[in-house]
Amino acid sequence: MPEFRKDPAVYRWVIIATERAKRPIRPDASDTAQCPFCAGNENMTPPEILVLRDKSDPSSFPNWTVRVVPNKYPALVPEGSATQITDENYEVHSGIGAHEVIIESPYHVTDMALLEETQFEAILRAYRHRIMELRTDRRFRYILIYKNQGVEAGATLEHVHSQLIAMPMVPKLVLEEINAAKNYYEANRRCVFCDAIRKETDGGERFVIENARYLVMCPFAPRFPYETWILPKKHSSFFEHNTQQDDDDLAVILRETLIRLNRSLSGPAFNYLIHSSPLERGENNDYHWHMEIIPKLIQVGGFEWGSGSYINPVTPEQSARSLRAALT
Amino acid sequence: MPEFRKDPAVYRWVIIATERAKRPIRPDASDTAQCPFCAGNENMTPPEILVLRDKSDPSSFPNWTVRVVPNKYPALVPEGSATQITDENYEVHSGIGAHEVIIESPYHVTDMALLEETQFEAILRAYRHRIMELRTDRRFRYILIYKNQGVEAGATLEHVHSQLIAMPMVPKLVLEEINAAKNYYEANRRCVFCDAIRKETDGGERFVIENARYLVMCPFAPRFPYETWILPKKHSSFFEHNTQQDDDDLAVILRETLIRLNRSLSGPAFNYLIHSSPLERGENNDYHWHMEIIPKLIQVGGFEWGSGSYINPVTPEQSARSLRAALT
Repeated sequence: MPEFRKDPAVYRWVIIATERAKRPIRPDASDTAQCPFCAGNENMTPPEILVLRDKSDPSSFPNWTVRVVPNKYPALVPEGSATQITDENYEVHSGIGAHEVIIESPYHVTDMALLEETQFEAILRAYRHRIMELRTDRRFRYILIYKNQGVEAGATLEHVHSQLIAMPMVPKLVLEEINAAKNYYEANRRCVFCDAIRKETDGGERFVIENARYLVMCPFAPRFPYETWILPKKHSSFFEHNTQQDDDDLAVILRETLIRLNRSLSGPAFNYLIHSSPLERGENNDYHWHMEIIPKLIQVGGFEWGSGSYINPVTPEQSARSLRAALT
Repeated sequence: MPEFRKDPAVYRWVIIATERAKRPIRPDASDTAQCPFCAGNENMTPPEILVLRDKSDPSSFPNWTVRVVPNKYPALVPEGSATQITDENYEVHSGIGAHEVIIESPYHVTDMALLEETQFEAILRAYRHRIMELRTDRRFRYILIYKNQGVEAGATLEHVHSQLIAMPMVPKLVLEEINAAKNYYEANRRCVFCDAIRKETDGGERFVIENARYLVMCPFAPRFPYETWILPKKHSSFFEHNTQQDDDDLAVILRETLIRLNRSLSGPAFNYLIHSSPLERGENNDYHWHMEIIPKLIQVGGFEWGSGSYINPVTPEQSARSLRAALT
């Protein structure tokens, strides 16, 4: 059973999950007969939790557009209670949670940017459905959706997919972001993310693109070159409160952002993640959900692991300029 | 000129250093005639700040054992004052600091574990000398020594070297560690690191090796597989307060630890870093300097970037067992 352990010095929980050591290091990518995410190989994954189908022709092959399955090598497991075990100073918490895989296409596509807009819509719908179901489980306090595309970004399978982890605690970085946003709101009576949106809209130097409901920008103090954020223009604390129309607009702009990153950077490995409010909070004035996209261009080294600070050789103004020009 | 930028949401300074974009991506490693760190190529680096020589024969070639030079592509620069510039909500601080390279051998050795014990002693002496000099500059509040060995660990040059960054602020992670250690001390009137040492000495399951003055152990809640710490047994807040005899003992145990990591893991890329007290504090009861060694075995992905939490597939008890057995 996996476990959470708290560092006795730094306030940071790590997940010790020895099951994950059994993951294949790097399975033969070219042999799609062996790809557990391809249509026809559904029996190679654990039974599915959710399947979305294209209603126009239910008898067609493949007969699904998006599947969600439990991660075969989970970092957290759903069984058991969230009992805390404390060995003197050493805090341990049983590794309760959910770890799911969202298979984003029935075909062996390896770059999300190549998917159709309708497929992006289906993926976002799958994210939302899974969050809505998991948030009814009162043991969970936070749900993180994330994607690793490319070996350098941590992917072990190349077939397009993302992942979801539900956990019994709010993770450190989210807590820090929430606390900082709360403090900002208390001081200014404005949301710090809304302020950034206002600042970048209409000729802001970190502005990338926008549509009716979303703004894409490079953040002011990015950890990484070409780090790019997507924010809803209308203040909202929870990704899963999106309407169908919100998702459709997000699908369009996420796809275009990934295409622009591909053009600017020749198809980089990347991560993305969705930062949304902790489950127990309601809609609030201070926290604004958003998506962070992080191309994997530089190696993180001793300075970063030792300081928690980052050296970024590219300004967000340069990144934004390059992304704005990418499709012209 | 580089700059520090503070994220308006999370409390985290990043260093935006566009000079570093000019670094060679991966110079031809095998051509030692082109290696700026090899003896004979001294003119390929900026003028040296410190050079250690083997006194027994000053006329020999090479005529040095360790050289310290400014980083040619610095993340921070020594000129200028530490003026803070604030653009509305966006805090910027000029990128004042020092960024130095410690060249750890005159020969083209690529694995630190292959160096002699006397060479390790010289390297530690160089670290200490540089810190002692830089700490007289009142603009600096923290000095971090770190090493990146191997491309996967962030090294761009393969010749053995480490780096030093002096900066005008205490970095986030060090601040967190210090605050947590202070809280622990206030609650327990004992140092949290001393407690860990006591727990692991004499058959502790995360114990690796020890000598008269140092203990090597895997920490209770490691971020990474085979993460290994070296701690002085006698409580001390500053690495640079080490005596010559302390350094000699550290040289022996650091070398043996790296050899054991090599045996257990077939010569992994790795980082190490020294966590010492901020410069403005004196010796104190709560903070205990130590060295953290992090082999680069797994890719960090969207979960880690989004949560600040880590999934580690290897328990520290497994890592310690493997390291204990590595030379038997």
